[in-house]
Amino acid sequence: MAEPHHPDLETHLQSLIPSPSRSSLRDSVIPALLQSISKIATALRTSSKVSQVGTANAFGDDQLNVDVIAEDIIRTAISKCPSIATASSEEDPVEKAISSVENAAEKYTLAFDPLDGSSIIAPNWTVGTIVGIWEGGSALNQSPDRQIAAILGVYGPRTAAIVALRIPGSEDACFEVDFGDEASDLRKASMEVVRPRIHLESPPFKTRYFAPANLRAAAEDPKYMDLVTRFIAQKYTLRYSGGLVPDVVHALVKGHGVYISPITAASQAKLRRLYELAPIALIIECAGGSAVESKSGERILESEVKDTDERGGLICGTKEEVEEVVKALLG
Amino acid sequence: MAEPHHPDLETHLQSLIPSPSRSSLRDSVIPALLQSISKIATALRTSSKVSQVGTANAFGDDQLNVDVIAEDIIRTAISKCPSIATASSEEDPVEKAISSVENAAEKYTLAFDPLDGSSIIAPNWTVGTIVGIWEGGSALNQSPDRQIAAILGVYGPRTAAIVALRIPGSEDACFEVDFGDEASDLRKASMEVVRPRIHLESPPFKTRYFAPANLRAAAEDPKYMDLVTRFIAQKYTLRYSGGLVPDVVHALVKGHGVYISPITAASQAKLRRLYELAPIALIIECAGGSAVESKSGERILESEVKDTDERGGLICGTKEEVEEVVKALLG
Repeated sequence: MAEPHHPDLETHLQSLIPSPSRSSLRDSVIPALLQSISKIATALRTSSKVSQVGTANAFGDDQLNVDVIAEDIIRTAISKCPSIATASSEEDPVEKAISSVENAAEKYTLAFDPLDGSSIIAPNWTVGTIVGIWEGGSALNQSPDRQIAAILGVYGPRTAAIVALRIPGSEDACFEVDFGDEASDLRKASMEVVRPRIHLESPPFKTRYFAPANLRAAAEDPKYMDLVTRFIAQKYTLRYSGGLVPDVVHALVKGHGVYISPITAASQAKLRRLYELAPIALIIECAGGSAVESKSGERILESEVKDTDERGGLICGTKEEVEEVVKALLG
Repeated sequence: MAEPHHPDLETHLQSLIPSPSRSSLRDSVIPALLQSISKIATALRTSSKVSQVGTANAFGDDQLNVDVIAEDIIRTAISKCPSIATASSEEDPVEKAISSVENAAEKYTLAFDPLDGSSIIAPNWTVGTIVGIWEGGSALNQSPDRQIAAILGVYGPRTAAIVALRIPGSEDACFEVDFGDEASDLRKASMEVVRPRIHLESPPFKTRYFAPANLRAAAEDPKYMDLVTRFIAQKYTLRYSGGLVPDVVHALVKGHGVYISPITAASQAKLRRLYELAPIALIIECAGGSAVESKSGERILESEVKDTDERGGLICGTKEEVEEVVKALLG
């Protein structure tokens, strides 16, 4: 069987970002972040001795040593990108200077979660990295439209990345890059665009998937309990790893599905707006789907992020499924 | 922080299998299977072009080309083990001769599923390999006690293997092997025993996990629906990837949890007794847990396998949780 032809990353990026005014984003920022995803994959693979560092990060989560390694890899990579002015992360949630950007035409800030899914690292389930790329020197108190790109690293049997672009004046784009055998020679890590266009489809679907996060909330929220039992009665297929990245990527790759993370008084919001919700929402929207706040039904990308520790709930997936869930939970 | 000391595989196997009458199992069969797991991991990592082969296997499943690759890797590895008389697999479910075993003191047959979890390969979730090692030339119509070892390969951000031993005259053993960076030099793939003793603990637990497989069955089985809603009301944590290997490994690594795959007239049994249920049951039992048939509550390892296509339901995990589930579904 002939193998399908996949465009290489450079060609694909060039076709999506032709403008010279975005050359740094295209030729430096995105490639550097993808390289760091490849390096994090290698670090995870050779870190069988994953152990708790025993310190808690600024938000009080247990920090694994692989979290620290992932953070360092990204910080080192972006220090070489002259258009990245500042960055903050879930591990170090203060926007700090990276480069003194001279060329004001291209100036970006990053907001990233270096390694999402700590609880499933020990059992060796797929985990991920989440990155949002914003115009300017700060992502706080800014229009969410200033987030012009987002990247997910996906560490599983393969290493993959999902890239979304929402560049003013261009059409939204969302695609998947896979890495070749990066361990053997990092510099030659081949990146192939294995899915040039990721798109959430419209119903009907033969199989319907649901990912009910924060399921304990259903113990207090009868509407969530009703929704879950309705999914079961309607014979939806359950896929829920508990890792935000693999759960969202499942829908992106299958072309449909719905992820639900409601919040209640007892089961409070865990997902951070800046490091998790905003980049995930951009990716889902660029793939033609919908991502809304579970409490209000409002688009995640409707309102500004005011603080790095702001948190929220999430419903995302195909537009039709999200609408149904919003009706069920808020109607 | 000092890294914990991990015994190497050879030393660990020598301590668990000291008898010279099992030297072939210890020095040839188990190492060859672990090497093949390392090779399958490499094949998966470099196979971003995963695509349907377009043929169906003997059971009518869609076959992915990585399934075929995994099957070939294991067949090639075991062809060099003179004590393996025969083997059959989910891809080729007929017990066929491998070696003409001269030394009747050690003679084994393998029953394996080369790559379990086809549906979650495309979204890059963790998948696995399942192997049962049986005494003699056939696993059919034999006492299940003749299955003396089982191995799970776990392909995620790392490559790992769970090994269980139930050798007559020895205590049950269950441990986890992790592979170093096997991609860079296959022959030097380092294997470390990162968890020398895997053991399912006794309650109470701070977090309680449940993995409700075949959840569509709850649409027809009010007892299953009641059980699921009870888990939610009791604030169990949901972890369900839909891959048998990662779902079972989650419980093994966390030290507790329960996996439930009931069957109904409309949602029929999918798990094969020879290639999936028997090896999984051996591993769970060797870790101190319990694995029973969901229809009868009988131990999976109570009755003979009569046909390679025999299927069943499964409840497995810690003894206490399995007992509770059996009461709820069958009581």
